[in-house]
Amino acid sequence: MSDLSAEALSLLQTQTIELPSWAFGNSGTRFRVFTTAGVPRDPYEKIDDVAQVHRLTGVTPRVSLHIPWDRVEDYEALRAHAENQGVTIGTINSNVFQDEDYKLGSLANPDERIRRKAVAHHLECIDVMRATGSPTLKIWLADGTNYPGQDSIRARQDRLAEALSEIYAALDEDQQLVLEYKLFEPSFYHTDVPDWGTSLVHCLALGERAKVVLDTGHHAPGTNIEFIVAQLLRLGRLGAFDFNSRFYADDDLIVGAADPFQLFRIMHEIVSAGALAPDSGVGFMLDQCHNLEEKIPGEIRSALNVQEATAKALLVDREALAAAQASGDVLSANAVLMDAYSTDVRPLLAELRDSQGLAPDPMEAFLGSGYLEKIRAERVGGTAAGWGA
Amino acid sequence: MSDLSAEALSLLQTQTIELPSWAFGNSGTRFRVFTTAGVPRDPYEKIDDVAQVHRLTGVTPRVSLHIPWDRVEDYEALRAHAENQGVTIGTINSNVFQDEDYKLGSLANPDERIRRKAVAHHLECIDVMRATGSPTLKIWLADGTNYPGQDSIRARQDRLAEALSEIYAALDEDQQLVLEYKLFEPSFYHTDVPDWGTSLVHCLALGERAKVVLDTGHHAPGTNIEFIVAQLLRLGRLGAFDFNSRFYADDDLIVGAADPFQLFRIMHEIVSAGALAPDSGVGFMLDQCHNLEEKIPGEIRSALNVQEATAKALLVDREALAAAQASGDVLSANAVLMDAYSTDVRPLLAELRDSQGLAPDPMEAFLGSGYLEKIRAERVGGTAAGWGA
Amino acid sequence: MSDLSAEALSLLQTQTIELPSWAFGNSGTRFRVFTTAGVPRDPYEKIDDVAQVHRLTGVTPRVSLHIPWDRVEDYEALRAHAENQGVTIGTINSNVFQDEDYKLGSLANPDERIRRKAVAHHLECIDVMRATGSPTLKIWLADGTNYPGQDSIRARQDRLAEALSEIYAALDEDQQLVLEYKLFEPSFYHTDVPDWGTSLVHCLALGERAKVVLDTGHHAPGTNIEFIVAQLLRLGRLGAFDFNSRFYADDDLIVGAADPFQLFRIMHEIVSAGALAPDSGVGFMLDQCHNLEEKIPGEIRSALNVQEATAKALLVDREALAAAQASGDVLSANAVLMDAYSTDVRPLLAELRDSQGLAPDPMEAFLGSGYLEKIRAERVGGTAAGWGA
Amino acid sequence: MSDLSAEALSLLQTQTIELPSWAFGNSGTRFRVFTTAGVPRDPYEKIDDVAQVHRLTGVTPRVSLHIPWDRVEDYEALRAHAENQGVTIGTINSNVFQDEDYKLGSLANPDERIRRKAVAHHLECIDVMRATGSPTLKIWLADGTNYPGQDSIRARQDRLAEALSEIYAALDEDQQLVLEYKLFEPSFYHTDVPDWGTSLVHCLALGERAKVVLDTGHHAPGTNIEFIVAQLLRLGRLGAFDFNSRFYADDDLIVGAADPFQLFRIMHEIVSAGALAPDSGVGFMLDQCHNLEEKIPGEIRSALNVQEATAKALLVDREALAAAQASGDVLSANAVLMDAYSTDVRPLLAELRDSQGLAPDPMEAFLGSGYLEKIRAERVGGTAAGWGA
Repeated sequence: MSDLSAEALSLLQTQTIELPSWAFGNSGTRFRVFTTAGVPRDPYEKIDDVAQVHRLTGVTPRVSLHIPWDRVEDYEALRAHAENQGVTIGTINSNVFQDEDYKLGSLANPDERIRRKAVAHHLECIDVMRATGSPTLKIWLADGTNYPGQDSIRARQDRLAEALSEIYAALDEDQQLVLEYKLFEPSFYHTDVPDWGTSLVHCLALGERAKVVLDTGHHAPGTNIEFIVAQLLRLGRLGAFDFNSRFYADDDLIVGAADPFQLFRIMHEIVSAGALAPDSGVGFMLDQCHNLEEKIPGEIRSALNVQEATAKALLVDREALAAAQASGDVLSANAVLMDAYSTDVRPLLAELRDSQGLAPDPMEAFLGSGYLEKIRAERVGGTAAGWGA
Repeated sequence: MSDLSAEALSLLQTQTIELPSWAFGNSGTRFRVFTTAGVPRDPYEKIDDVAQVHRLTGVTPRVSLHIPWDRVEDYEALRAHAENQGVTIGTINSNVFQDEDYKLGSLANPDERIRRKAVAHHLECIDVMRATGSPTLKIWLADGTNYPGQDSIRARQDRLAEALSEIYAALDEDQQLVLEYKLFEPSFYHTDVPDWGTSLVHCLALGERAKVVLDTGHHAPGTNIEFIVAQLLRLGRLGAFDFNSRFYADDDLIVGAADPFQLFRIMHEIVSAGALAPDSGVGFMLDQCHNLEEKIPGEIRSALNVQEATAKALLVDREALAAAQASGDVLSANAVLMDAYSTDVRPLLAELRDSQGLAPDPMEAFLGSGYLEKIRAERVGGTAAGWGA
Repeated sequence: MSDLSAEALSLLQTQTIELPSWAFGNSGTRFRVFTTAGVPRDPYEKIDDVAQVHRLTGVTPRVSLHIPWDRVEDYEALRAHAENQGVTIGTINSNVFQDEDYKLGSLANPDERIRRKAVAHHLECIDVMRATGSPTLKIWLADGTNYPGQDSIRARQDRLAEALSEIYAALDEDQQLVLEYKLFEPSFYHTDVPDWGTSLVHCLALGERAKVVLDTGHHAPGTNIEFIVAQLLRLGRLGAFDFNSRFYADDDLIVGAADPFQLFRIMHEIVSAGALAPDSGVGFMLDQCHNLEEKIPGEIRSALNVQEATAKALLVDREALAAAQASGDVLSANAVLMDAYSTDVRPLLAELRDSQGLAPDPMEAFLGSGYLEKIRAERVGGTAAGWGA
Repeated sequence: MSDLSAEALSLLQTQTIELPSWAFGNSGTRFRVFTTAGVPRDPYEKIDDVAQVHRLTGVTPRVSLHIPWDRVEDYEALRAHAENQGVTIGTINSNVFQDEDYKLGSLANPDERIRRKAVAHHLECIDVMRATGSPTLKIWLADGTNYPGQDSIRARQDRLAEALSEIYAALDEDQQLVLEYKLFEPSFYHTDVPDWGTSLVHCLALGERAKVVLDTGHHAPGTNIEFIVAQLLRLGRLGAFDFNSRFYADDDLIVGAADPFQLFRIMHEIVSAGALAPDSGVGFMLDQCHNLEEKIPGEIRSALNVQEATAKALLVDREALAAAQASGDVLSANAVLMDAYSTDVRPLLAELRDSQGLAPDPMEAFLGSGYLEKIRAERVGGTAAGWGA
């Protein structure tokens, strides 16, 4: 850890990554949802798994919920269960894409009745936020069209703006709204919030407590994601990340699995802008699907990947970098960055964990813990959690 | 029709497009499969819908089946039902991606037992071919991996080659195998048959009755599909098309809906190579999902789109084109092609239908036929057909 | 023309498309700039060619200049020459990417001296605007980096914002600035204005006379361009189009040559938003390279392609479209759009030209005019115009 | 080095990477070729620079030449100069894209005379091979079209096949031909050799001494390059790599600069197939453009990047990997691979160099050598080498 400044070490020690409850359930593609033994049957069991990851990694103290996938009778009880397990409820994610009514959209649907229903669902989510102590409402919309002419692109923007303003108005003063964008899927001709520009213009129209969510898998091929990170930070409107990775479309693989160098470059922009600090207002979350691999180890690996990329970003010699950049020395500036990236930070992180009373290797600790065998034995019967598509 | 030569007219009159049984059932994305009233509950009803499209368009006399989606007790009875309705069974599609055993692959699975099971499924499909009179076995594999290192790319190729050779050996002399390729999905790191080159090298190893299937939605962005068509025709290995259209990934939209000019360019290569004739050995099939739109009208629209693109391709003044190409006159050569594309061929096709005793506008005829209302009323209860994902 | 409403016909009659002076000179790729006989040697001859296109098509009354490619001693004389030929000077394009000083950027360069030089060049361009009567300064920047770490993404945004504000402040009240974005090339890691969002946030910071330029070739694969058109129109910030077409990157081919359906969809959004009218504030320009084909016929073809797409967009039955959209009838709504697209509008446009005293077929008229032979004979000696790369 | 097996160490010690002469000259984009002080003025000086890189890195003992860029009076003298400097002539690259005659193509040109001229150029290159001792003729063709209909895709394939067979027939028994493919640029509609499949089918038609060249920048977005590597190795037809890196199109950046993990995955396939050995028949070459950065340090960095990726690939615990793959343990298999990738191999490589009598840090050694200052002082006057576009 001696390679890190005291400030950098402190940032690493206080970094947190929010886990999605749905990553612990079954997921798949339109071709098949394969099953996994020991998968949670309800939100309580999902929280148990999140807490288990947190106990081992020390960096995942919050869980995102997805309504209605995580709908329960008593949200206060769910909150208490989480807190007993050592974690808290983070973001509440709405879902307006799985009811038959939403076939042609939700907040942008041409049918006024359906738009009202979709707004009402968000008001329910805000109630869940109050009950669970969640500070953030995350909105991702499947809205869009499959065929040219199917609906008016422009009219849908106007309907969307109106619906969002109703939802925003319903938020408490200490609550915020974050709006996610996505290039395509499930809509295949146009998507109503396809890019950061669209999310931003809606957030600007709403007010200061509306910010953009950047999901690392939601861009066109070739998009420079760290540029968007830097731009949104500059504008004060980067609300949260949905971390995952992709080779093609929105593959939702383990973050850092497809392009660890890109993850490092993103964290470099974050660190450069001073946005890693807990009070920066940027939420670091995962949004992943473990279609083939075990879910809990998949989440552990993901948390470690983010942590490793962060440690590397903190190792960048920023003075040397600035000097090389100022002098126009292309190769030297690049070399300063690559020097940090090429460093093996696993020993440093093992040392950090040791200093925090954690096992140096969380994956090894988990595999040796018997947790997996326990849930496979206990979680028999009932319906395994999934997307309910 | 006077704009067409007698030969061109004859080709247009004899063109056929095979319909996929599954296009008439429900389909969707990993986010949601929305339902449609009147959807078939079994293969018999799917064939009824195919036959209805054929009665109106006159160009869809065959239906592709998908096993196990179209598994029935008595395939001879299914065949007789089809023939009674005026259509025949075309291609048999295997399915080795929806059983729990196939989580890590089928013909390329590291587990010998699972590879044997997948081969056995194909032998069952060959039996179905015999019972239904189908000449063609179509193989599309979901095989691949999601993470680097998950399995050996090379070993999987070798396993695949071995399994394919077993299947090929089981074919009768008058049966052929066509092997489909796809860039990605459901595999997100590597796919075992990702491109036409891979499909081709396996077909070359198998023998003359193994050919490549080109699905128009299965390529990387920017791929020139008509080039692949021309190349496979030159090599004598274009077995079949799976027509559909896409803006992003494998969107499976109505063929010609996203890029009608591309469809025209593809048909231009077909016509140029003399591969439109019924005995050319190239199968023209649709493979689409009508997630949002009505299924039967969606298939009618698709058949018309292929027919319109074909008519335009037949209108190309090939002598003028060859002359402009030979003289290096870039703009004139392009203009000859565009002249055909810019022509409105709908009147010509209406006249053709009229001459065949069909309604000039099949869509209008369908909407006025009462068929939709009839199936919505009759097909109540039971389980609507779908992918069973 | 009877298919068009009086209003639609009037819009078609008054449509104008601005031509780029540089399209008439030689251009190429990094591999080779091939030459063409008869290419202009100076801005006067370029204007002669623009005027020739206008005389034949009736829709290209303005020419964009590029400084320094079109630098002359006496801009008033150039303006007079243009007006004598029946055209006017439109947009002035700055160029801060061909001086050795701009190797690492211009307005975003880390070196203050170079930024000052780049700002000064824009002030010179504003002087050219005053002398030529040009209302619009178009800024496209090659600024960016080739390697991660080469420079600070964030710092470059701040420098860019500052430089743009100086340039904006120097504009007269009746002048406007339009800022173009581009995904990549010539920068290969990050570009300082890579997307419409970035261009927009800079324009918003500058003021009401700063708007976005959309070049149809400057997006990532899969980007829905008509969505961006609709969004920018909704925000009142679509300043101009740079029309061209592409299959891969920024190919700069003839507009409508690669995807005529996309061009139609773009014009449909324009017409839907009432932005086709001369006073809409949206400039329709071409920005193309005729690397292989003859330049003047290439520009004629381009103007005709835009005109044909516009005529088709004006043919859309907007009432029927709105009704189908409101009722959620996906296929019918799409069919209304496709009905217009499938129409052959060439007879209609020939009739329109005839009514305006123009030859019905401008390409044929040009090829028969002897102009090409004349310039090939006259424009011998001197240096053919080109990019000077 | 103790982490490596004796065999792995031996492979690392004998690895070689061929350098392109043209990387030491000026290069750029269609927008601008910026200049660099000290750039070679002739092939002799380029070879001096290659030799300098080899003296420092110990892994670059060969230089690729490009005809006509490296045309000299006396090739024997050039060969002797190279050998005096401690390097040899490797591959000879033909160039049939910069003569006016090649505007519409070379080996696939519709004009017989031009095809003959292009074949003759290749025969000249074979003579250069004999004079320089080069074993390999590398063919990359710019052939293709910019507009649909411009020429017949099929006819061009046939012309190409015929011309290639003439060239192949002219090779000596100990010479081979490698055929490069590229998706696009400078052709923007279709390219005559756009993908590995096309290159392969031509090589198969030619004979055993015809193999495929894989340039890492020549694929569509999303293409899995290591899959192609594995497939071509399996087929015995991977002739050579052109290493470089890209974020968008054919950016020709320093290899490993854009996606170091991809480079590692490629080397992993190479090592897995036993194709790293000097006698494997696979040529490892660079093909890069240092548009902004210093050329010699750019080549040093590139050689180091390949070496580092190779060392990581050699560190993969292949037994553990095979065991995890066989058991279907997705995460463990991936972890074995990532464990090697996460290792910092720079100390190991420094030790290796030290054992070979080289400076541990070649870049530092170069910057301290005074070579750069020397060539900047000496290489004044004359014409700096470049592409001559």
